[in-house]
Formats: sequence, structure tokens, C-alpha cells
Amino acid sequence: MSELRKDPVTGRWVIISTERRKRPSDFRLEPVHVSPDPACPFCEGHEHMTPRELLAYRRNGHAPNQPGWDLRVVPNQFPVLRVEGSLDRQGEGLFDKMNGIGAHEVIIETPKHQESLATIGEAAVEQVLWSFRERVQDLKQDRRFRYIIIFKNHGTAAGASLDHPHSQLIALPIVPREVRDEVDGARQHYASKERCVFCDLIRQDAADGRRLIAESADMIALAPYAPRFPFETWILPKRHQSLFEDAPRHEYASLARLLADILRRMNKALVSPPYNLLIHSAPLSEAVGEFYHWHVEIIPKLTKVAGFEWATGFYLNPTAPEEAAQVLKDAHP
Amino acid sequence: MSELRKDPVTGRWVIISTERRKRPSDFRLEPVHVSPDPACPFCEGHEHMTPRELLAYRRNGHAPNQPGWDLRVVPNQFPVLRVEGSLDRQGEGLFDKMNGIGAHEVIIETPKHQESLATIGEAAVEQVLWSFRERVQDLKQDRRFRYIIIFKNHGTAAGASLDHPHSQLIALPIVPREVRDEVDGARQHYASKERCVFCDLIRQDAADGRRLIAESADMIALAPYAPRFPFETWILPKRHQSLFEDAPRHEYASLARLLADILRRMNKALVSPPYNLLIHSAPLSEAVGEFYHWHVEIIPKLTKVAGFEWATGFYLNPTAPEEAAQVLKDAHP
Repeated sequence: MSELRKDPVTGRWVIISTERRKRPSDFRLEPVHVSPDPACPFCEGHEHMTPRELLAYRRNGHAPNQPGWDLRVVPNQFPVLRVEGSLDRQGEGLFDKMNGIGAHEVIIETPKHQESLATIGEAAVEQVLWSFRERVQDLKQDRRFRYIIIFKNHGTAAGASLDHPHSQLIALPIVPREVRDEVDGARQHYASKERCVFCDLIRQDAADGRRLIAESADMIALAPYAPRFPFETWILPKRHQSLFEDAPRHEYASLARLLADILRRMNKALVSPPYNLLIHSAPLSEAVGEFYHWHVEIIPKLTKVAGFEWATGFYLNPTAPEEAAQVLKDAHP
Repeated sequence: MSELRKDPVTGRWVIISTERRKRPSDFRLEPVHVSPDPACPFCEGHEHMTPRELLAYRRNGHAPNQPGWDLRVVPNQFPVLRVEGSLDRQGEGLFDKMNGIGAHEVIIETPKHQESLATIGEAAVEQVLWSFRERVQDLKQDRRFRYIIIFKNHGTAAGASLDHPHSQLIALPIVPREVRDEVDGARQHYASKERCVFCDLIRQDAADGRRLIAESADMIALAPYAPRFPFETWILPKRHQSLFEDAPRHEYASLARLLADILRRMNKALVSPPYNLLIHSAPLSEAVGEFYHWHVEIIPKLTKVAGFEWATGFYLNPTAPEEAAQVLKDAHP
């Protein structure tokens, strides 16, 4: 029998459709394979093919926008929002709009075209996380921005247009809906219980164990109770903290270790799946520190979103999170 | 320059990314081609391959579950929700769930495997709409259901698992989030202005003309001001009415004509695209008649939803609706 489950943070319901129960081998898997690409603008030696870098981690003595780097952050060549200009809000009868002010940056995670976060090593993953922190710390000085979202599309099926390992960052003049829903839900929980809902779910799932995938002293990886997608995985810091960019250094090291571990488990169990990764942190300059809790979400791309989901916002998930957690727990990389 | 636009009903923002501006020829089009399939369970003569029919339109003298039909409605063989049992709500510590009570039906729109709503003719499309009405009128007697969603996945890329022309209907024990957002937004608009927000946008867009695709005496087809997807199209009745299933017969005839016209225009301009279609009607037994307005949404599947959208609920649309409307207006089928 199927089950309807409610996400304790956003209140969003999902259908766990056990009638259509799916194990990894039941999905039409589309493994991500990356071939060398001599025209890749993100490869070392092609620094002239990107806008000038905003940040880079380089070995000693190498000049900016030249080879010799471990990681580069550059403006997106085709930005969805632009940093120049002032925010202009307008009405048009019934309608409201504003001009596309924001920032859109690309984090080139490694010079190695055919590697990935699962394979570059934990120190390199930690550098990637550290670069996120540095860019957010810089951009949040700009008072036009209300939110900065960091995300990654891995593989064409997950929306990546370039194969070379990279993440993206977009600074927005509004707080987006998914974050607003999480913040509002967390505020409501705190108002009635004086506790962070994420801390509560970490405690319950750590004790319960059925949705727990892996944990370390600082971090926990779990299959959420009401996931929208099969094998959706969240990684949360155990210590309460609302802002990703304010985490202490050792938490980035812990996160790097656990993230690389989870991605390797997914590569093993789900055959190098395309995926999306995102970081949810508190909105800029909102007093939500007591009840919001930053975290990472990883969504392997295994199913198609179709009419039912667009029509309802209600997701149909053919794999129970308890089963997904067990599969990932058993997948020793 | 990109633009941020707010949907006047739900308040959802989208980014119209003119930097990445896309005309039909810029999309990687995946035309829907249907080949004959001797094993298709929805073809005439294969009535034994489906559960027993709930409704059928047949030529005189043909027995149920036998050939001789124009349209059949059958329970889904692999339902996501089941009609048997009573609704059981449970808590699990922090978490909430209920059992999967509901109904899941398939409307087989025609016996002709290789046809589609664009080609079966307006009278046949009207029959399809009429069957939706009959099934909803029947299912809404069941007090366990709060909402009935009707939708269609056309083409594998849009999530169809069978090629034979069909729609689906799912009766749900809760009002789904997208509908809740529309209802709440419409209620708010009504509270401040004493007018239906959909009636307001029909008036504004009919007068403005830039997003108007086609209209008849009863119906209007337009590109919404803040569409999530390129070439997203809404069809609305001009006369205010909250429930699809209470429309007068001549409105189904008008809708059939306009819907077939729009689908043929999409087939021409976007090369037989995969698409999702859905009907948004008022929740069952909620007093929203004054401010909610039923409508049809058609979403061609041209782009991939990626990390940014999952992370934010904020959609990135590379085609301005004014441009999409012009392309569809110019596409004479």
C-alpha cells in the first residue's frame, strides 16, 4: 500500500508509492561518462576562454588567469542575472516585475576535466566548500541581495551544459519560495516547541536508524522522511547553525569527507548517476538563527517529473527512504 | 537584460532570461513519434488487458469491456493510490503520514493508437472533456477525497509510459500544494479587491494582446505573464466559474476547439513536442466559488529542470511569454 508522508519542515506531502516500488536496478540508469574535450573553457590553459577570475586557489608564484591553479571562480559567461545596475521594481497593471539584478558565478572545482567531487579527494572537496564560503562572505556585503544559492548540476540529464566539474552560485534580490517554505516551517515549529525542527529530526533519525546513511562526529547523512525523489539524501551539521558560511573550518573538513563518501556510495549503488546538489542556508539579514539550520541536499536524477507533479506540487516517489538508506549503507565504495 | 516576474495568482517569481533567449529552433527538440504496438493494452480488442471499465462511450449495441468503443475509462493497473479502505492518519514522533487512499483512473481517449488530442477531431476531444466531467461528478460523492487532479503526459520525455493517447485522473485525500497556493492567492486578491484575479488577468491580457494566443466567444488561450516554462499556455473560460465539472456543455465544445487548435499550433511551431496538460479546478467542498477560476495549463517539455529550480522553486525561463505567444499566433496549423 502506498503512503502519504509529510515533510516536517515545509509541510509538503509526498506519495511513497510502494506499488511501484523501485530498487536501483529498476530505474533506467543513465551513467555519467565524461570524455576529454579539447575545447573545454574550464580546463587548465584555457583561462582566456572565461571571464576574469574572481577567486582562485593557486600554487605559489602563479599569476591570475594563467595556469597553475587548483580551483577558480569566474563570472558565468551567460549570466541569468547581472550585477551591474540598481534594482528597479515596477508594476504593469496587475503584474509585478523587477530587473534582473544579481550575480551568477561558476566554481571550477578542479583543473582535471574527467574527475568529479567523488574522486578529487577530500582535501580538494574541502577547498570547494571553502571557496563557496569565501564567495558568499564577499557577495553578502551587497545589500541588494536577499539570498545566495549554491548548486551543482552533474551530468547532462541533471541539466549540466558543460562536463568539466563545476558548481554555480546565484545571488538573488528575493528569497526564493523553497527557502521561504523551509524558513516559515522552521519558524512555526520553533514557535510551538522552542526547538529547531532540523535538530529534532536529526535526533529522531539518529536514534531510529532506519533512514540514517552515515555519520561522523560533526555531520549526519540521512534519507529524509518525505523525500520528493528516490535516493534523495540530506547532509546536516549536528551542531545547530543557520549559516553555511559561518561554519567553523573543521565542519567543512567533516562535510567534505561525508559528501565524498555519499557520492561514492551513489556512484556504486546507482551506477554513476546524474545528480543535483544544493546548499540551503539562511536568508541574508533575516533573524532566523535560532530555528533555521543549514544543510546540503543531493538529488540523483533517476525519474522523470511529469504532469502529476507539475499540476499538484505533490511528488510521487517509487522508493521508500528506508530502502534507499539501506541500499546506500550497504554500498561500500 | 533578464527580468524577474511575479505570477499574480500564486506570487511565485520566475526569471525570464533574455540573455539566454530561445526561439523554437534553439531548443533540442524531441518530437513525439508513436509506432504501432501489437501489445498495447489500450488498443481496441485488448480490453481484457485492462481492469474492467468504469465508463465507456460506445456505439450502439456493443457490450462493456468489448470492442466497439470511442473512449474508455479504467482503473489504473498500477495505481499510486487505492480506493479500498478507510483513511488512517498517523504520527510517528515528529513525522506525519496517512495511508494511500485515493483513486487513480486512466482515460483512454480514442481506440486509435497513433492519433493524439491534436488529431482526433474536436468532437472526440469534447468527448474526452465530457468523460473527465462524468468521472469527477461520480468521484466527488466520496467524502474521503479533497481534490481530483486530471492530467496528461504526452510523449516519453514528458513522463508517459504508454504511447496510446490517454489522460489520468487521481483523487487525493488532501488539497495539493500548487492548488492551495493558487486558491490562497486568489482569496487574497478577492479580499483586497472584491474581484477574481483570473478574471482580472483575462481582462488585462485580452486588452493588452501581447500574450494573447487565440480566443473564442467562451474561451481564451494565453501565455501567462510569469510562466515557469517556455511556451507554457493557459486556457481559461471567460465566464467566471470555479469548477470544471460544472461548466455548461457549450463550454466543453469551445474548450475542445481551442485546445485542439493550440495543440496543433504547438505541433507546428515546436515540432510535435512532448507536453504535460493539467486541469486546475476548485478543491472539493471548499467555499471558493467567488474567487477561484478553473483553467487548463499546457506545458511543452523543452527544457530540463535542474539544481537551481529544485533548490529555489524559482524557475528560469529562456523564452519571454510575449515571444512565445507571437510564435504560436503565427503558427497556422
